[in-house]
Amino acid sequence: MTDFVLGVDAGGTSTRALAVDADGGVLGTGRAGGANPNSHPPEEAAANLAAAIRQAAPDPGRAAACVIGMAGTAKLTDPAVAELFERTWHDLGMHRVLILTDAEVAFASATDAPDGTVLIAGTGSIAGRIRKRRMVATEGGYGWLLGDEGSGFWLGREAVRATLAALGRDAELGPLATAVLAEAGVDPTDRHYAWRRLITVANAEAPVRLARFAPLVAADDPVAADIVERGADLLVATAMAAREPGEDTPVVLVGSVLGNASRVGDRVRAKLSGLEVRSSSDGVFGAAWLAAVDAFGEAVARRPH
Amino acid sequence: MTDFVLGVDAGGTSTRALAVDADGGVLGTGRAGGANPNSHPPEEAAANLAAAIRQAAPDPGRAAACVIGMAGTAKLTDPAVAELFERTWHDLGMHRVLILTDAEVAFASATDAPDGTVLIAGTGSIAGRIRKRRMVATEGGYGWLLGDEGSGFWLGREAVRATLAALGRDAELGPLATAVLAEAGVDPTDRHYAWRRLITVANAEAPVRLARFAPLVAADDPVAADIVERGADLLVATAMAAREPGEDTPVVLVGSVLGNASRVGDRVRAKLSGLEVRSSSDGVFGAAWLAAVDAFGEAVARRPH
Repeated sequence: MTDFVLGVDAGGTSTRALAVDADGGVLGTGRAGGANPNSHPPEEAAANLAAAIRQAAPDPGRAAACVIGMAGTAKLTDPAVAELFERTWHDLGMHRVLILTDAEVAFASATDAPDGTVLIAGTGSIAGRIRKRRMVATEGGYGWLLGDEGSGFWLGREAVRATLAALGRDAELGPLATAVLAEAGVDPTDRHYAWRRLITVANAEAPVRLARFAPLVAADDPVAADIVERGADLLVATAMAAREPGEDTPVVLVGSVLGNASRVGDRVRAKLSGLEVRSSSDGVFGAAWLAAVDAFGEAVARRPH
Repeated sequence: MTDFVLGVDAGGTSTRALAVDADGGVLGTGRAGGANPNSHPPEEAAANLAAAIRQAAPDPGRAAACVIGMAGTAKLTDPAVAELFERTWHDLGMHRVLILTDAEVAFASATDAPDGTVLIAGTGSIAGRIRKRRMVATEGGYGWLLGDEGSGFWLGREAVRATLAALGRDAELGPLATAVLAEAGVDPTDRHYAWRRLITVANAEAPVRLARFAPLVAADDPVAADIVERGADLLVATAMAAREPGEDTPVVLVGSVLGNASRVGDRVRAKLSGLEVRSSSDGVFGAAWLAAVDAFGEAVARRPH
């Protein structure tokens, strides 16, 4: 035993596992359904974790360590959920399992540096201060009702708000407003009707579903460009608030809003141009690397590739 | 007949009716339960309207006109609701009934001027452009999910956000944060726990219930003063957007956030100091005055007193 480790990325829609040796060489991979205990019944989450792990390593009990990256780790403070997960590791014969946040494995997937900042913007937004590869403080992350500035929710909401403003002022409808009304299925012929109808449509679904309008800010439109700029400013401010004055560490960008094909991501990278900015790769690589560091030490372990 | 008119203020919790003569003298008053068709079954709303009207004028069929001010008039576009209301007027023998918005009767309650701006800030916020005593355009009024800047919802949300920021930064908890945590029933001893718990409490109720934290911004605290200032700026911007350049007409303030005892109201009045700013009195007086103008003409009718 102890010649390999396991990394697991437990997402909302799928769970991936990776078995690697100390050199970062991949020995096996596994995949199963989602295992976020916030969005899945705990029993289902635990079963999917076990399935992905067994697929990556037929005898997981021989692994020197296992790191699981997971959103919604707060759920594990529920003793019943914690016990269920403990029983799962026991049944697999695993003796060392660390559950970390998705932010921590995302940071580790992008850099060897132990300290830095992770900035996440998907449907929500949050920044984390990373010290010794663990998140020691956060900025933002209040959720859609209280914050999530610059997130997909926020961008989508601003797109809808800008469209309502254009309808209310009887202004010409630019590419963004036209795209928003099309996405919402609202006929713009009668402006007053369209205004009311867009508010109704936006309120008819769960608030976070406003994120479906976020991709429309890529429109070639000054109104959209203004939203992108404000969103990028808010995300940069969130990231900087998680850093100490003069801190010279990497910033790792995570999430669809900060992807390489995203205009908001481009603007955030431009605004952070004095710093080392990296994009997270696959969280499962970060999890495996953190497991290797835990088991073999920093001097020996290599980042998986 | 035709020697008196009726004004009705149909609110969410109560309905008031007023019978006045052309000189604005009060002939009778009536009161019943709420009659907002958004928050009450239409049958109940109609019955309460009829009860308040009959109490103010035993023979309402003799009234020259009746104006009803009501929030949620959009509901009346439902043909079934409209027919129910029509039947109610018919049964009362009333031949001229105008249903106007709560904003229009609030404006008329405060000024004889036919044109101007009405700015409403209660749980939500909206501004209206008034021409010939009717609202011809609105600014804001998107509702809590998409806007309501400067409203009670907005002020309460900012109070909670400021508290989360103080908890997250391990900063000293000032009077506002202390009051917010007390209102939410969150023990501040463990900062990290309090942060999570406050988010949970805020999300556990309907979003508009964040307005319950709004009165706390009256705290003697620079953080609270900043929220008050930003809220007042947003409300003033909303009101100004409803005005034409150089418009020299009154601005009528309505709602708990803009009351005479409200700090936000004080700041809004200060920022609008170059204009004639009035506070709405009782909407039922505005409704009766609009009915009198409709029946007797502007030259004859006097505002009720």
